[in-house]
Amino acid sequence: MKVKVSRKAHFNAAHRLFRSDWSFEKNEDIFGKCNNPNFHGHNYELVVSVTGEIDQETGFVVDMKVLKDLIRDEVEEVLDHKNLNIEVPEFEKLNPTAENIAVVIWNKLRPHIDASKELEVVLFETPRNFVTYSG
Amino acid sequence: MKVKVSRKAHFNAAHRLFRSDWSFEKNEDIFGKCNNPNFHGHNYELVVSVTGEIDQETGFVVDMKVLKDLIRDEVEEVLDHKNLNIEVPEFEKLNPTAENIAVVIWNKLRPHIDASKELEVVLFETPRNFVTYSG
Amino acid sequence: MKVKVSRKAHFNAAHRLFRSDWSFEKNEDIFGKCNNPNFHGHNYELVVSVTGEIDQETGFVVDMKVLKDLIRDEVEEVLDHKNLNIEVPEFEKLNPTAENIAVVIWNKLRPHIDASKELEVVLFETPRNFVTYSG
Amino acid sequence: MKVKVSRKAHFNAAHRLFRSDWSFEKNEDIFGKCNNPNFHGHNYELVVSVTGEIDQETGFVVDMKVLKDLIRDEVEEVLDHKNLNIEVPEFEKLNPTAENIAVVIWNKLRPHIDASKELEVVLFETPRNFVTYSG
Amino acid sequence: MKVKVSRKAHFNAAHRLFRSDWSFEKNEDIFGKCNNPNFHGHNYELVVSVTGEIDQETGFVVDMKVLKDLIRDEVEEVLDHKNLNIEVPEFEKLNPTAENIAVVIWNKLRPHIDASKELEVVLFETPRNFVTYSG
Amino acid sequence: MKVKVSRKAHFNAAHRLFRSDWSFEKNEDIFGKCNNPNFHGHNYELVVSVTGEIDQETGFVVDMKVLKDLIRDEVEEVLDHKNLNIEVPEFEKLNPTAENIAVVIWNKLRPHIDASKELEVVLFETPRNFVTYSG
Repeated sequence: MKVKVSRKAHFNAAHRLFRSDWSFEKNEDIFGKCNNPNFHGHNYELVVSVTGEIDQETGFVVDMKVLKDLIRDEVEEVLDHKNLNIEVPEFEKLNPTAENIAVVIWNKLRPHIDASKELEVVLFETPRNFVTYSG
Repeated sequence: MKVKVSRKAHFNAAHRLFRSDWSFEKNEDIFGKCNNPNFHGHNYELVVSVTGEIDQETGFVVDMKVLKDLIRDEVEEVLDHKNLNIEVPEFEKLNPTAENIAVVIWNKLRPHIDASKELEVVLFETPRNFVTYSG
Repeated sequence: MKVKVSRKAHFNAAHRLFRSDWSFEKNEDIFGKCNNPNFHGHNYELVVSVTGEIDQETGFVVDMKVLKDLIRDEVEEVLDHKNLNIEVPEFEKLNPTAENIAVVIWNKLRPHIDASKELEVVLFETPRNFVTYSG
Repeated sequence: MKVKVSRKAHFNAAHRLFRSDWSFEKNEDIFGKCNNPNFHGHNYELVVSVTGEIDQETGFVVDMKVLKDLIRDEVEEVLDHKNLNIEVPEFEKLNPTAENIAVVIWNKLRPHIDASKELEVVLFETPRNFVTYSG
Repeated sequence: MKVKVSRKAHFNAAHRLFRSDWSFEKNEDIFGKCNNPNFHGHNYELVVSVTGEIDQETGFVVDMKVLKDLIRDEVEEVLDHKNLNIEVPEFEKLNPTAENIAVVIWNKLRPHIDASKELEVVLFETPRNFVTYSG
Repeated sequence: MKVKVSRKAHFNAAHRLFRSDWSFEKNEDIFGKCNNPNFHGHNYELVVSVTGEIDQETGFVVDMKVLKDLIRDEVEEVLDHKNLNIEVPEFEKLNPTAENIAVVIWNKLRPHIDASKELEVVLFETPRNFVTYSG
């Protein structure tokens, strides 16, 4: 009996979308207001889902408290109240689009999830824009 | 790295569920209050999702602004503040159930999405009733 | 100890904003898309609040079940799945704007609420537009 | 044209997570505050989804009213305002974790859904914790 | 410049509505399913608001972190994952209706809020039922 | 018949909480993570409410489209995708706390609202933190 267990979390951060190897004009053309050199920011809402067999002893696929603490340690501590471009090494050369942030979060969590289980990350950049990555 | 990018949109409209080749009684029996000949209406909430590879240059699967404008032009302009039965040609002979509206929206958007990408439409008829169509 | 007790409810309906004593052009100018002669519609979300002293015997200001049934009988039965302009007598000559619908609902409920208690109606026409009326 | 039709429902209940064959200390260690012998409780939000072909005659995959009544009869009547451990036979020896409750609900609904259609249950234990089961 | 600062919090608990000085039949008549002797439960969502002048030095009416910690210490630690009737002394003889719980929470918080500031508590018992108390 | 008409809007921005006349240590002590010199950011959700008499001719207190455009011109255009500390003159010497941002928005809108009507601004900094200002 495979069940998908999901936990919501939250962080907020500043970012800027741009490529340093492009002119300001090209960045403006492609990224518009998101290219503001002074940065803008978001409340990122995160849903992390782990899919696997129910442990017959506990009735858990994964202990929600363990999952909550994992997200806090690996994601919230690293991204919350940060400037993604300046303070998060993964984005030194990687554009912090919602797509790329979701992949970075997935890569941070994957080593801590049992290999027999699947991992999915849903990241809301705003209440109207969100992305999903499953590896 | 395949990512699913989702954008929420909104339109409201009047509709009536019925078949013109059925008696009023049969329509009443099957569609109940939704068969009101004077119409009723909904705030339809729409989530359009496009799944594909991240463009390594921009970090986008699809530019959210482009997706937002596409939904505005192809869906909102056509359905918002309309009477679906009377003013939307696709429903001249097709019952505007949530299921059929989702299929019509998917068909309107599909030609504008790159063939290498998948398209999914989620349509909320009310906060408690919704449907999902992926082609 | 005065407490405000609130209950959410829901109905959906079709309507049109216009004045029969104005030209189509003037209606179009003032009411825009809401003047569609074929009607459009909404999911109306309603919050009804009653404020009064806590009954020391029951611990209730008002029994939520009683309030729920009252809203069902006086509001939902009358407005749900209806065309407000055609089927609801109050709007025969009254424009069914959110403001006016809220006042009509308040007037329907007020006689059934104890005179010692205050009544407030919040009506969401869409998730982004709502009105509040307290008599 | 396969469409997934989803309906939200609600029940609230008391429960306790523990195994009677474990010591209190081991239960405390694994289930923490959820092991409170006096019980705690939740508002469970439920999303039931049925996936199948659109009936070309009605435009429905499944009649939402029928689905709503089925959920009321098979799930809400049985679980709402109940103590899951004491009053629901399925949990006499089964730990009422969100995972197990979702499986129990799925098993209650499956016999009433046409065999040609797929069934999915999403159960929110809190707004931040939820599980998904598809059989 | 008076501003109202609001912070959302959460706890879940089991409870039963009844009076020990009433017969089971009378309790059943007044409190219905909420009189279940085995208890039921809720996810209580709480909004605590403090109204006062903006401190010209910090720009805060109240530090949200301080307010968050106060709610955690005075409310969440005391009510979360508890059986309100059995484990919370205030409800030994007081029926734990939403109205009474809101008053108890307000009384717990009031001594910790500066006398020059107003305090309001909104308590959601379910997403559709909530109460407001301002002292 | 006085009715309060409310319209939701949205902007996102970067900011930093600090006073330039305080040491970094004092700023860190008072503003914690919000003092990050590289900025962080939020999706700000805004609810603007105007209270007044219903115009008997139109049935409006205020035309929602006019209110929507006013918020876009006076608030969204000025604050959306901006760094509040660097790019918004009002915050050159004023700490951009939620309280102060709400007051600034209220001051921007007040001259455009008829003097006979009341104005209220609710600003969500996160889904769990929000402030209300009414002048």
